[in-house]
Amino acid sequence: MKLGTVSVEGAQRVAVAVDTPGERAVLLYAGLTMADLIEDWAAARPSVERAVTDGARKAVTVGGLTWLPPVPRPGKVICVALNNSANVDRIISGPSHPATFNKPATSLLGHGQPIRLKQAFGRVHPEPELAVVIGAAGADIPHSAAMDHVFGYTIINDLTSPTMRAQDTFHYRAIHPKQDGTEGIEYVDTWVTYSGRYKGSDGFGPIGPWIATADEIPDPHALTVTCVHQGRVITEDSTQNLTHKVADVVSYISGYQTLEPGDIIAMGTALKGASGGGAVQNVNLTELGGPIEVTISGIGTLSNPVEMR
Amino acid sequence: MKLGTVSVEGAQRVAVAVDTPGERAVLLYAGLTMADLIEDWAAARPSVERAVTDGARKAVTVGGLTWLPPVPRPGKVICVALNNSANVDRIISGPSHPATFNKPATSLLGHGQPIRLKQAFGRVHPEPELAVVIGAAGADIPHSAAMDHVFGYTIINDLTSPTMRAQDTFHYRAIHPKQDGTEGIEYVDTWVTYSGRYKGSDGFGPIGPWIATADEIPDPHALTVTCVHQGRVITEDSTQNLTHKVADVVSYISGYQTLEPGDIIAMGTALKGASGGGAVQNVNLTELGGPIEVTISGIGTLSNPVEMR
Repeated sequence: MKLGTVSVEGAQRVAVAVDTPGERAVLLYAGLTMADLIEDWAAARPSVERAVTDGARKAVTVGGLTWLPPVPRPGKVICVALNNSANVDRIISGPSHPATFNKPATSLLGHGQPIRLKQAFGRVHPEPELAVVIGAAGADIPHSAAMDHVFGYTIINDLTSPTMRAQDTFHYRAIHPKQDGTEGIEYVDTWVTYSGRYKGSDGFGPIGPWIATADEIPDPHALTVTCVHQGRVITEDSTQNLTHKVADVVSYISGYQTLEPGDIIAMGTALKGASGGGAVQNVNLTELGGPIEVTISGIGTLSNPVEMR
Repeated sequence: MKLGTVSVEGAQRVAVAVDTPGERAVLLYAGLTMADLIEDWAAARPSVERAVTDGARKAVTVGGLTWLPPVPRPGKVICVALNNSANVDRIISGPSHPATFNKPATSLLGHGQPIRLKQAFGRVHPEPELAVVIGAAGADIPHSAAMDHVFGYTIINDLTSPTMRAQDTFHYRAIHPKQDGTEGIEYVDTWVTYSGRYKGSDGFGPIGPWIATADEIPDPHALTVTCVHQGRVITEDSTQNLTHKVADVVSYISGYQTLEPGDIIAMGTALKGASGGGAVQNVNLTELGGPIEVTISGIGTLSNPVEMR
């Protein structure tokens, strides 16, 4: 099943696709949210299926809908960094486990909504990614149970400003306890980067339109990821190239951050460029504008125009 | 006025202090949340004042209460990095504006609740900080209006693991567009640190117990900040040493991340050590345990035990 959230006369409505490409949808009753469905999906699913069957004749064309993020206010958006096999030969040193940062819910944006950039953001490039939507809550989830915590999959465009990343990097002498074990401190030359602006600014998280429920995606590591800028293909990759797989990531993260229903995990940028094309880093949306589009097989297409503000 | 959130028989209740130190409190009716009050404080304040006057005889001693984070589920927790004048001579290069990261709501913990650490977290040290609670929503807030968006102030202990910080740092060749302007990419030697684990793990955000409303704190830059570990004073600082002031920070951040009612902004670590004492970085809670206590004048004392799990 494919589920999304749309806005109708200012109210949230859950949309359910009635065909495979997700071109027509039934809207569930007002007041029911995606969070409600995820919270108790096993109980809700049969009635959603009935609503789709009964309502198919009244299905609407999705082209005219105003999309919100499929989970409009996730408790967390956790993003895995540098998680593609194409990164490997660029990493001089780094962890062998998933490293993550958090994007705020205010950075999220629905399908079709304009990404509103400022000149102050500097360069901003797209990062096409598979995103996991968490179903059942959990902490310290064993690897063998990790997939049971996946409600479904969606698409996120993890917009990034390398300009703000460089600006918000400190080279400094960090305070460390003395290495020799005596009381007192010593200084260690350190670099540290803060992601609040370069990953978390308003509009830096287009997401959706659909969540494909887990049963629709038997293998999340066999999906093609395509990114198209102004009609030109810039990424043609596969989720098979993710270094840390979905079960690894869900299990690992849950050992540090308790996962809750509706939490989003962005699995890391699909990087493999189209033959003859550039890299996502060449696509400066601040200068070039949009639209910018990410397609993942079996899930759908996320497309957003770009506006300057 | 001083407001907190407590849990009574599994339900959230807003507590309002009836005396200046906040030793006795009136509980407002069940169903009313801190988010509700913040959302419409001008309208709610008179009835809260009436409830305090009318209920003073039935006030409870706060010692026996189970505290939650004062805003139990803030939309965002934004933390300002390296924002103390004591940092200045340690910074070799870095931005002259506030640099920030986001902590997830799941990392927050109420006053008195145990910080549950794992050996896998490595070293974990306290960082005592003044936190701003946002009232009215806003984006691109002018400096002159910034203080109008402050609902009040609370205390946060921004727990940090330098072990996980080091582990989650990549030294890598970042992809940049070619400097000469021709199409294509080049590689730039870069360090980047991801804060998901070292700042965002469960229990890394003790906060509260009280929010002192803005009218109680005429000057947020004239407050003493004290951090006490197992009865030993490790920090004696003043918010006058914050490099970027509250109005600067609120205005600056709102240019990138839309601020919403109940959002928390942690203003940066109070660093000045007690005479003869060590630094907060010397206090490895994983090894030494708690309790760890932060007091800010005019707001209160946040104290948490430490447990291993």
